[in-house]
Amino acid sequence: MAKITFIGLGNMGGPMASNLIKAGHEVTVFDLSKAAVEALVAEGAKTSDTAHSAADGAECVITMLPAGQHVEAVYLGDDGLLARLPADTLIIDSSTIAPETARGVAEAAKEKNLPFIDAPVSGGVGGAKAGTLTFICGGEEDTFNRAKPILEAMGKNIFHAGPHGAGQVAKICNNMLLAILMSGTSEALALGAKNGLDPAVLSEIMKQSSGGNWALNVYNPWPGVMEGAPASRDYQGGFLVKLMTKDLGLAFDNAVKNQASIPMGSLARNLFQLHAGQGNEDLDFSSIQRLYRGE
Amino acid sequence: MAKITFIGLGNMGGPMASNLIKAGHEVTVFDLSKAAVEALVAEGAKTSDTAHSAADGAECVITMLPAGQHVEAVYLGDDGLLARLPADTLIIDSSTIAPETARGVAEAAKEKNLPFIDAPVSGGVGGAKAGTLTFICGGEEDTFNRAKPILEAMGKNIFHAGPHGAGQVAKICNNMLLAILMSGTSEALALGAKNGLDPAVLSEIMKQSSGGNWALNVYNPWPGVMEGAPASRDYQGGFLVKLMTKDLGLAFDNAVKNQASIPMGSLARNLFQLHAGQGNEDLDFSSIQRLYRGE
Amino acid sequence: MAKITFIGLGNMGGPMASNLIKAGHEVTVFDLSKAAVEALVAEGAKTSDTAHSAADGAECVITMLPAGQHVEAVYLGDDGLLARLPADTLIIDSSTIAPETARGVAEAAKEKNLPFIDAPVSGGVGGAKAGTLTFICGGEEDTFNRAKPILEAMGKNIFHAGPHGAGQVAKICNNMLLAILMSGTSEALALGAKNGLDPAVLSEIMKQSSGGNWALNVYNPWPGVMEGAPASRDYQGGFLVKLMTKDLGLAFDNAVKNQASIPMGSLARNLFQLHAGQGNEDLDFSSIQRLYRGE
Amino acid sequence: MAKITFIGLGNMGGPMASNLIKAGHEVTVFDLSKAAVEALVAEGAKTSDTAHSAADGAECVITMLPAGQHVEAVYLGDDGLLARLPADTLIIDSSTIAPETARGVAEAAKEKNLPFIDAPVSGGVGGAKAGTLTFICGGEEDTFNRAKPILEAMGKNIFHAGPHGAGQVAKICNNMLLAILMSGTSEALALGAKNGLDPAVLSEIMKQSSGGNWALNVYNPWPGVMEGAPASRDYQGGFLVKLMTKDLGLAFDNAVKNQASIPMGSLARNLFQLHAGQGNEDLDFSSIQRLYRGE
Repeated sequence: MAKITFIGLGNMGGPMASNLIKAGHEVTVFDLSKAAVEALVAEGAKTSDTAHSAADGAECVITMLPAGQHVEAVYLGDDGLLARLPADTLIIDSSTIAPETARGVAEAAKEKNLPFIDAPVSGGVGGAKAGTLTFICGGEEDTFNRAKPILEAMGKNIFHAGPHGAGQVAKICNNMLLAILMSGTSEALALGAKNGLDPAVLSEIMKQSSGGNWALNVYNPWPGVMEGAPASRDYQGGFLVKLMTKDLGLAFDNAVKNQASIPMGSLARNLFQLHAGQGNEDLDFSSIQRLYRGE
Repeated sequence: MAKITFIGLGNMGGPMASNLIKAGHEVTVFDLSKAAVEALVAEGAKTSDTAHSAADGAECVITMLPAGQHVEAVYLGDDGLLARLPADTLIIDSSTIAPETARGVAEAAKEKNLPFIDAPVSGGVGGAKAGTLTFICGGEEDTFNRAKPILEAMGKNIFHAGPHGAGQVAKICNNMLLAILMSGTSEALALGAKNGLDPAVLSEIMKQSSGGNWALNVYNPWPGVMEGAPASRDYQGGFLVKLMTKDLGLAFDNAVKNQASIPMGSLARNLFQLHAGQGNEDLDFSSIQRLYRGE
Repeated sequence: MAKITFIGLGNMGGPMASNLIKAGHEVTVFDLSKAAVEALVAEGAKTSDTAHSAADGAECVITMLPAGQHVEAVYLGDDGLLARLPADTLIIDSSTIAPETARGVAEAAKEKNLPFIDAPVSGGVGGAKAGTLTFICGGEEDTFNRAKPILEAMGKNIFHAGPHGAGQVAKICNNMLLAILMSGTSEALALGAKNGLDPAVLSEIMKQSSGGNWALNVYNPWPGVMEGAPASRDYQGGFLVKLMTKDLGLAFDNAVKNQASIPMGSLARNLFQLHAGQGNEDLDFSSIQRLYRGE
Repeated sequence: MAKITFIGLGNMGGPMASNLIKAGHEVTVFDLSKAAVEALVAEGAKTSDTAHSAADGAECVITMLPAGQHVEAVYLGDDGLLARLPADTLIIDSSTIAPETARGVAEAAKEKNLPFIDAPVSGGVGGAKAGTLTFICGGEEDTFNRAKPILEAMGKNIFHAGPHGAGQVAKICNNMLLAILMSGTSEALALGAKNGLDPAVLSEIMKQSSGGNWALNVYNPWPGVMEGAPASRDYQGGFLVKLMTKDLGLAFDNAVKNQASIPMGSLARNLFQLHAGQGNEDLDFSSIQRLYRGE
């Protein structure tokens, strides 16, 4: 078991830290929200006054922060964590940020002999609580192997996508594809319904045919077709539209920087953005189904 | 076992009729191509001079024709099959045509007390040969139940999508979604590759994550990732680009008639059409991957 | 001056017939709506019990009907107008219909030695009243030259686009481009406004730069920028969303039949259809601006 | 007449500086390319060893640089121009860069009491040579009024779009709309041609109808329709595809930062990027016509 400092206790980070405690790790936590910190302390975590002092003595630091600027603020600069941590402390950043930012932090870490991996997750709040997240990692093989047993306390599938930044790239690609699947599936169901078909029957047919995809398998966007799916509880909870548009914004940035064509992903991004702009940004992303139904 | 007349012995119809023979049915075939007819006769089929005389004495007529106009030509009019067949002969049309056309033939059949189902297939030439096609049927429950044992000689999954035309609608929806999945998957792989990721690694990650879909499971579009997939044999064979654009044309027609919005499907259709226009219409449809790679 | 029979007295046909009367032509009218007929009779038109008897004695028949099926019903069949009119009667169809339908009627007319042109219009109800419509004609040069002086009583620009059907094709192309211009202009204005720019200032800049187009010149979609434009009267009146989606449906059909790629036009069609589906089909088409503003 | 230092003598900057000389200004130039500098010296310009020394004694500094990073490198930092120029020196940046970057430089300039405007141009190399550029300016009214007479030596239309950054925003919006017009016009012409229409005739009709736009007026994309347009010289010269994709990349960035929906602009960007990826990045942007013709 390891001494782990966990920084960033939001909807995802909180349950992730909790699972580390349950696995027997010695966990110190930090967040600007006192309530979030206290919840973890009640489960057995230690804490400290600052992110930096919280990391003292850690064998491993894990960050789960909203955006690239926060990651840079924690790690870089004269008073950043990289300047304070002893060599060889393992650093895992599970935030979803631009690959360039991840690579920048990785390079700065390397100069201090600090092994770093980017390890963004998929699986949502449900996966974070259940400890069944998917981690998509970028970094050196050795670092990945050191991180893996720790990540296994929080997730089920732990992938090594490639060198530094590759975890972020793979997450961007996956979530862009997810946005395409979800809007495409919603569109096909709405077209069928306009023709009088029962969306449950059509879902079953497509799921077992060449239209089969993750949305039809576990996250059907049509209300009432799948018990337990956000669509069956008015699209409350789940993976919010505003988080999907954030991830699709990273895809846009990446496509521009790499001169890549992403017509399908761009259209999906704009449909989700239109949907967000009509007041739906705090609904689950499968609510894109409503855009197709004229609601 | 039944006396079955099979009309339309193309790449799909030929092996379908062959599987009926193997299952022990008494099959009479007809096609304008003598070579196609002779191949089936060599396997034990009977034949006749015309489509109409070929249907004499049949308990069941199956048609597998290129487009709606051919289906109408065979069945309707003063000298069409509907005017000739004795009441209660089971009619199965497996052509992929517009739902309106299917409904029109179904209504004309009903006036003659001829039970009719539309039963378009998915699964391609491979599925036709292996007898593992998916049949997506529209029509009355009784008719569906009568047709099912016959269809099981040619396919594995036999779905009842709803009333007359519903089989065609479900097929249109499924294939539109398939076009979206395939172009979206190709796009995500190309974006990852532009970032230096290994498409095989990225495919594996997305397949097990929320980007998972039929294309990643059994029909990976990146050359060399999946042995046996058309992508690994220069996109030869498989489901041709020109057939996919035909099906997407049916989706366009249907969306116009039903005032449905299909932004993702429309974009996919136009990407496949651009790709076809650049000389690729006789390649497998997963060759859309090439459009993203600038080839 | 000519003896003209005018069939179809809707929002467009009514004022068009009225302008023919004002120009001194001897006009007989027919419509299923008695009110529409009476309004024209009050202006000096004659009428008759049926479309067919209304055409007796005419030197020229003009039709302005909602869709292709109505045009076929009036002209074709054993009791259609083509069977009744004496040879050499000039026929002008100003309905907006599929080119194939126009060509079909033209061919049937030719067999009866009846000169026919398709002559769809642009310019809207305002242009119809003011007699400033644009006529886009398809047919033989001679027929076009015979029709031109009559059309000039109703319009300002009379174009000869090519052979039979070419008028319809050119109108489809123009209106597809118009849909692209209008949604593109709305999008650029919304993007500028999100950045804090004044839409009136931005409109003026783009109008005089390479973004200049018809929408910025005479039909600005942002409320308050252009006095007299539908945007400045809550998008009432003008060219309705449902008519634009009808025309874009013709573009879809045409692209499928001709295996043409129309990605921009398809996206515009789907945006207008989404907008229509949210309850805006009876607003002016420049109300697409609202889709971009999240209203 | 003013003492002006001009930094950045590329395809645009060179002829712009030349026009300042012709107007009687005392011009000092700098560029990393000696050939570019010598060409201007031959026309009467002075020069210096570095960008910084070139600016000594200037009443006005104008920069015309490829991207935001170059603009920041010239102006910001301890040894940037802002640290060196005496208060009240007028600064005009005509580079096309992100609004945020322009605002950052403007704020840094303000701290040094240096009046700054962002003044990106449209009109291309032809406009730069002819002195007929359009300048789209962002900044304070006073600064704009000081800059205007200088800009008039290089351009014909000088717009004040709003506060700092507004020039960049307006240029981004205009060029996004231009990309939409050009691809939309190309698409409409290709659709007409597929139907057998003469693109010259169709162009003329749409130009005078509601499809009218800048591309049809002065920059027709179909080869041979408009003498002098890049389309009539194999798309050589003009506004290169790679520059259009750069500008559309700025639109992407801006839409993400402002949570704006830009479906039409995004699709246009991806079509131009597909076209660039097929080896056409050094052709004029109206060569997008070729994508629609399957070349």
